[in-house]
Amino acid sequence: MPYISLPEGIPGIRGPLSIRPDIAKPLSEFAETLMRGENSLSRGERELIATFVSSLNECFYCEQAHGGVAQHYLQCDTDFIDRVKEDYQSTAISGKLKSLLSIAASVQRGGKHVTETQIEKAKDIGATDREIHDTVLIAAAFCMFNRYVDGLDTWAPRERNFYIDRAKHAAELGYRVETKKEPS
Amino acid sequence: MPYISLPEGIPGIRGPLSIRPDIAKPLSEFAETLMRGENSLSRGERELIATFVSSLNECFYCEQAHGGVAQHYLQCDTDFIDRVKEDYQSTAISGKLKSLLSIAASVQRGGKHVTETQIEKAKDIGATDREIHDTVLIAAAFCMFNRYVDGLDTWAPRERNFYIDRAKHAAELGYRVETKKEPS
Repeated sequence: MPYISLPEGIPGIRGPLSIRPDIAKPLSEFAETLMRGENSLSRGERELIATFVSSLNECFYCEQAHGGVAQHYLQCDTDFIDRVKEDYQSTAISGKLKSLLSIAASVQRGGKHVTETQIEKAKDIGATDREIHDTVLIAAAFCMFNRYVDGLDTWAPRERNFYIDRAKHAAELGYRVETKKEPS
Repeated sequence: MPYISLPEGIPGIRGPLSIRPDIAKPLSEFAETLMRGENSLSRGERELIATFVSSLNECFYCEQAHGGVAQHYLQCDTDFIDRVKEDYQSTAISGKLKSLLSIAASVQRGGKHVTETQIEKAKDIGATDREIHDTVLIAAAFCMFNRYVDGLDTWAPRERNFYIDRAKHAAELGYRVETKKEPS
């Protein structure tokens, strides 16, 4: 049972946002711009950063919902998503993405945990200022989304396939609330 | 020196937002709605929650900037703001606000740290669902803002009076970027 009265059957963040359209509008526009706007980081890479941070925050809904979308964009399997969450250094992702995930992990612990060495390493391997900016902001944003979802104890389906099955449709709809209908 | 190239002399979150108007617009609209929109929690109370969370995250810029604005709205002195950050239970704020600050402190640690007992206590003392929702989201949002500010190692003036002196003007301007000019 969520801590506040929410409409039944709307999973995760969509529950509280459904009762607060005034908040949902700018917040979904922010997510759309950050996660899906024009960017040298692909949508799949950005969703992977979001999934990784949500996993570190142990937010089941965000981890599964964004993991499903990352899997859809990257055209990979569930095992690959799990391996990135568990030990991204041992996966076949680019060195640049590894350096960005390292920064994201520091942001998850707290902004001050990011070190000059991490930033230098990312720049040396080709990360741009904008990619570093977006990585820090994506990681920070999911520290918000994860806390919003779990701090209200929102409901979420426990079956992983729920998220994988809806990912394609979710990716087509995007994050803007105005244009979105519940895919399930 | 910030980790990425930012215009000099623009403090805290305003630095990175100044180079990303596409992000600044929805994010500032979100802050305006959450922190200054119509609400049974006063603007001062909401800024106090933001200041408290920023203090727990040890984000100097946000702690000072929002502490200054809270002080302006609440027409209190700097000592009062400090006492709330250090030991809010011993201050003269309402029991309801104390119960909400307790929830905010849990959200700062992570969404799952909020307990049913905390929520029940807040409801028993008169907190509405909406006030609990907004407290959780304000605390979560500042876990994002604090990480964004510190994760990029942004510049901020160290003199506390800088923030106190600009608070009145900052409160008049609000958070929307379109209508805002730097107050200093």
